[in-house]
Amino acid sequence: MSSIWGDYLKISLFGESHGPAIGLVINGLPAGVEIDEEYINLELARRAPGKSLLTTSRQEKDEFEIISGVFQNHTTGAPLCFLIRNKDKHSQDYEELKDIPRPGHADYTAGVKYFGFNDYRGGGMFSGRLTAPLVLAGAIAKKILSGQGVTIGSHILSIAEVREEAFDSPSLSPDVLLGLNALDFPVLNEEKGILMQKKILEAREEQDSVGGVVETAVLGIKAGLGAPFFDSVESKLAHLLFSIPGVKGVEFGDGFSLSQMKGSQANDSFRWQEGRVVTDTNHCGGIQGGITNGMPITFKTAFKPTPSIGRAQKSVNLATKQEVELKIKGRHDPCIVVRAVPVVEAAAALALLDLLMEKESGSWLV
Amino acid sequence: MSSIWGDYLKISLFGESHGPAIGLVINGLPAGVEIDEEYINLELARRAPGKSLLTTSRQEKDEFEIISGVFQNHTTGAPLCFLIRNKDKHSQDYEELKDIPRPGHADYTAGVKYFGFNDYRGGGMFSGRLTAPLVLAGAIAKKILSGQGVTIGSHILSIAEVREEAFDSPSLSPDVLLGLNALDFPVLNEEKGILMQKKILEAREEQDSVGGVVETAVLGIKAGLGAPFFDSVESKLAHLLFSIPGVKGVEFGDGFSLSQMKGSQANDSFRWQEGRVVTDTNHCGGIQGGITNGMPITFKTAFKPTPSIGRAQKSVNLATKQEVELKIKGRHDPCIVVRAVPVVEAAAALALLDLLMEKESGSWLV
Amino acid sequence: MSSIWGDYLKISLFGESHGPAIGLVINGLPAGVEIDEEYINLELARRAPGKSLLTTSRQEKDEFEIISGVFQNHTTGAPLCFLIRNKDKHSQDYEELKDIPRPGHADYTAGVKYFGFNDYRGGGMFSGRLTAPLVLAGAIAKKILSGQGVTIGSHILSIAEVREEAFDSPSLSPDVLLGLNALDFPVLNEEKGILMQKKILEAREEQDSVGGVVETAVLGIKAGLGAPFFDSVESKLAHLLFSIPGVKGVEFGDGFSLSQMKGSQANDSFRWQEGRVVTDTNHCGGIQGGITNGMPITFKTAFKPTPSIGRAQKSVNLATKQEVELKIKGRHDPCIVVRAVPVVEAAAALALLDLLMEKESGSWLV
Amino acid sequence: MSSIWGDYLKISLFGESHGPAIGLVINGLPAGVEIDEEYINLELARRAPGKSLLTTSRQEKDEFEIISGVFQNHTTGAPLCFLIRNKDKHSQDYEELKDIPRPGHADYTAGVKYFGFNDYRGGGMFSGRLTAPLVLAGAIAKKILSGQGVTIGSHILSIAEVREEAFDSPSLSPDVLLGLNALDFPVLNEEKGILMQKKILEAREEQDSVGGVVETAVLGIKAGLGAPFFDSVESKLAHLLFSIPGVKGVEFGDGFSLSQMKGSQANDSFRWQEGRVVTDTNHCGGIQGGITNGMPITFKTAFKPTPSIGRAQKSVNLATKQEVELKIKGRHDPCIVVRAVPVVEAAAALALLDLLMEKESGSWLV
Repeated sequence: MSSIWGDYLKISLFGESHGPAIGLVINGLPAGVEIDEEYINLELARRAPGKSLLTTSRQEKDEFEIISGVFQNHTTGAPLCFLIRNKDKHSQDYEELKDIPRPGHADYTAGVKYFGFNDYRGGGMFSGRLTAPLVLAGAIAKKILSGQGVTIGSHILSIAEVREEAFDSPSLSPDVLLGLNALDFPVLNEEKGILMQKKILEAREEQDSVGGVVETAVLGIKAGLGAPFFDSVESKLAHLLFSIPGVKGVEFGDGFSLSQMKGSQANDSFRWQEGRVVTDTNHCGGIQGGITNGMPITFKTAFKPTPSIGRAQKSVNLATKQEVELKIKGRHDPCIVVRAVPVVEAAAALALLDLLMEKESGSWLV
Repeated sequence: MSSIWGDYLKISLFGESHGPAIGLVINGLPAGVEIDEEYINLELARRAPGKSLLTTSRQEKDEFEIISGVFQNHTTGAPLCFLIRNKDKHSQDYEELKDIPRPGHADYTAGVKYFGFNDYRGGGMFSGRLTAPLVLAGAIAKKILSGQGVTIGSHILSIAEVREEAFDSPSLSPDVLLGLNALDFPVLNEEKGILMQKKILEAREEQDSVGGVVETAVLGIKAGLGAPFFDSVESKLAHLLFSIPGVKGVEFGDGFSLSQMKGSQANDSFRWQEGRVVTDTNHCGGIQGGITNGMPITFKTAFKPTPSIGRAQKSVNLATKQEVELKIKGRHDPCIVVRAVPVVEAAAALALLDLLMEKESGSWLV
Repeated sequence: MSSIWGDYLKISLFGESHGPAIGLVINGLPAGVEIDEEYINLELARRAPGKSLLTTSRQEKDEFEIISGVFQNHTTGAPLCFLIRNKDKHSQDYEELKDIPRPGHADYTAGVKYFGFNDYRGGGMFSGRLTAPLVLAGAIAKKILSGQGVTIGSHILSIAEVREEAFDSPSLSPDVLLGLNALDFPVLNEEKGILMQKKILEAREEQDSVGGVVETAVLGIKAGLGAPFFDSVESKLAHLLFSIPGVKGVEFGDGFSLSQMKGSQANDSFRWQEGRVVTDTNHCGGIQGGITNGMPITFKTAFKPTPSIGRAQKSVNLATKQEVELKIKGRHDPCIVVRAVPVVEAAAALALLDLLMEKESGSWLV
Repeated sequence: MSSIWGDYLKISLFGESHGPAIGLVINGLPAGVEIDEEYINLELARRAPGKSLLTTSRQEKDEFEIISGVFQNHTTGAPLCFLIRNKDKHSQDYEELKDIPRPGHADYTAGVKYFGFNDYRGGGMFSGRLTAPLVLAGAIAKKILSGQGVTIGSHILSIAEVREEAFDSPSLSPDVLLGLNALDFPVLNEEKGILMQKKILEAREEQDSVGGVVETAVLGIKAGLGAPFFDSVESKLAHLLFSIPGVKGVEFGDGFSLSQMKGSQANDSFRWQEGRVVTDTNHCGGIQGGITNGMPITFKTAFKPTPSIGRAQKSVNLATKQEVELKIKGRHDPCIVVRAVPVVEAAAALALLDLLMEKESGSWLV
């Protein structure tokens, strides 16, 4: 177990919030893949903080440096290493947290796991900042998938209790997803979006925070991806999604609602459409028996409210063994959901590319 | 990607529903672990079909044969191989399914993935029958965990729209979980249980099926398990849970409900209790930053209704390229949830043992 | 670490010499590969004991049972499981070895590693018998490679100090290798072969044993296989070869002799031949920078003499802490080299197929 | 397959000879391990070029930057990332090599594998320069092993045909190994050492190169390391050793010579010594059945002569399809063996630490 993920495509993540840099190494990409730095920057910008009152005021441009694996704008076949320097660190904000774990954070559990040696500043390796290299790798994967006719897009389904309609996935078009990609606050229903943003600003004023749910769709994926028994599409995707800080629930297709349907409702009937097998409904979210069926993949990712809040909270002092009141300083997101959208999409792109590489690898022999 | 799972503990699953046998190989267990065959049989019996009208009438006693790795009732350090012979097969029931994929099943997707070479009889390797060896391995893992003071138990939280109360996890006792282990239809509220069973029998009569949600709790687990970035407890567990046929949603602690809370509600405050750090509430389900905090782990697993139903359904004939009406013969569960309970617990036991082996492995050096 | 090997093709080996059966699970083969049972039997027969005075008198026909993954003679895409029952066991021969480790064997080290819980009968999982399933998997791999134009063959280069000429690899033809495959005692020089066999029979009479070296060549392999930095062809092959009981040395091309050459001798010059780049000499054994160059792969594998000998040896009694004289009963090979030939070839076939699957997997994107 | 190695300890290597930097990520080290930067620098200095006429004149101080995983001089539990900038690059020397592969080098095979997209400058990722991060990781591993009472040391057994005596391993003391560690040209016999150096200088003058053999010993390692079937100590070690550029042969204990012994000679008899089981001889190099027996581990690694030589060589032009004469410019080692010594030791330290982590990980349960 480690900060390495993937079977065919291997991602090795490193870095801590207040160390010199964060970054990652990518193994498994074949040589000759074009690396589009502009597109990577666009994706990183979607995740970057400091753009509005909806996010933390930490300013990190997230400029990346290519260390290896790219020559004349194409992959060389060698491992790709990317570095993103940490710049706007306020390490002194974290000095008093050394002995007082923040509720809802990894401070306490990391301290136990690492015998107190973990870098506690800014959450160390548990910082949401580590998702930046994930977005970077995801941008490369998205670009490759895009060349294969695959489109990935998401909307904010809910913030706190404000919720808009879910995707009508059987009729979803790539244009809708691309449109959402371009929005700062991606929703299908503008009015609901305004209400959601209001919830975030209210939480900010109250020195509190809110959570939400992101719904994601993937169009154009081939049938036949996914590897039973243990590497169903759901398993691969959920594994990566639950690595994203703050994620506490994942469902595919109609998910938990499916548990309340009858089989006769839930089963997606097959029919022919232009020589292709399709289904009328898409309750299963494009995945049957853990394998893609060629219909849109849909899934929902639930984020808890950001644990860092300005309000006073009860905690303990691990050194003095006392109970204490904690007021967290530092700069934090009142809601992580907005910035999490490209991270969720990156996870999807990486999981699907890994599965696609497996599928294609098997075909040459038969 | 393959039918091999695990980092420290490695499970290699094999078999198809209508082949000679199913089974698994376990690598990574140290030598000297006692193998309790009686306990394994008890766990297999919890999953076995044919016990009542609530399940399929396929009769499989699931007797296992030890092929390797056990000598004088203890592990030898060599890989353990177990075999479970397939006995009550009605392969002829599946002949007509060869070209007509059952809606909601893996028939279509498996055919695409395996170029038509997959063993379609009884769902082949996609059969729920493959969960029997998982329960076998889970029984070994549960026994080891039990020796470390860990108790795992589950109740059926809902069937169709009938739902009982969730665990009150901060006050949950091992006795409650052990009591649930012993029930044929494990619920906390007997009346709700009767209503749930009624729903299943109704579905059976209507030649239909229903789904449901299983809630599971793990007590007595140490703080400090889980491995960031990619092997959070949630990631490891969800990966295995989403491998179980029929699972479409997984959430930890308050899961999707957390997305509607404020940070000030959702954060579990710390306090001291008998020299140990505990939390008042347990919204996070015992996992913070992907690592156990020593509180009960809780999670919910959503199952879709069994796709095999007697009612007529729309499908396609892949050979003739026509649209057809399909009536599935054979013996099927009107609801998979009851038999899935020990499978979910097996997944939890395996994931946690793997994480525990990692934790202990790191400690010798420091 | 475990009894699982491979990256794209995964082999999971199990079994102990005196348990019910030995066998293996193969993951990663695509669906639709024809399984030629007759060819597998031929390969198993090459390794089987009891054929002449040159080998042990243990009679094991090594009949295999297909447990999963094959339907209508083709792979289904599911894991393949094969079982070989242990029949001619004389477990009582091993009772006194429980506390007295045989020199040169794994008895002592296995006891330490497994805290005394290992199955000591017949060497348990350390028995050369475990190479039978390896040969079985190798037969499948060899057949697939053969379909890609690849031929693998070996000769016994030396037994004790009797040594024949090595392959003249640049001019080697597939017919020579196929001819060697068909021989019971594969040598290039018949006279030398007779001297070698004489050495083995002498050792047998003296209740002693001899070792030897196997040289193997692979023709028809594509250029471009092998994965730097850590998965050079040499690394992959040597890893598997050093898993075979009794192997203590491996060299590629001219190996240790290369260390005595000058660069101007050792470098294989390039030239054009029928539009293909070839080399005049093949000192590097077809591998440059860890990657195949399209020339024949050649390597030599050194086996120590069988440690089981009838002569009296000094050992210790672990229970009584005394020094003792040990005379090993039981049936043993006076020389393992003859039966090891198909095992070495199986290792080569598996390693190369794994590398070939990696190579082909990368090509679809570019 | 990838530039990632290890089971418990995972090394992810990256970088190319003429890119901005080379480096590696280490996963799996527990938190709290002290990082001794001075010792790392000492080890890097042993490998660094430019120290005498025996090596290349490329000047690389190999200063490393810690990017992550270290806080207050101790590991934090997060992945460690180290960077070594490339400074003294003469990329123009390689322009003409683009189409003309150097005999004995990876140029041709890399071009085939990577469809011509590989960074050919300085050998790209095939450069011996990539062994610098390996030495860095090895220094950390050596330091940890040293804390466990393990000493690793090597001597140059031969250069070209000049060969000194091998270790007399049963009587070898840690002091001898530590003494060798401190030598610029580590040999046991000073006179032989002078003859070896003379061979290197002669080759240099002739614009040629020579190879040699390194013999390594590891003292103080516990009995019980190594994991059958596929992860014997020999397999793990050989895998890493054959990743080092230029290695073409590896043997353990008496290696190839064992193939000429009788069993009665080759078997290392057991006896008691101060309550410990030891062997009189150590022909097996401290490894029986793939597992350490507590005696010194010994192995020999054969290096071919450096392929880069100044003399004219025959090659081909891949663009024009002509045969050409090639004279390699640039700065090269007349013999790689001297600088390879710390690399071989790093490989041993990493392999043994990985195995030791596995051994200790199993013990907590029993």
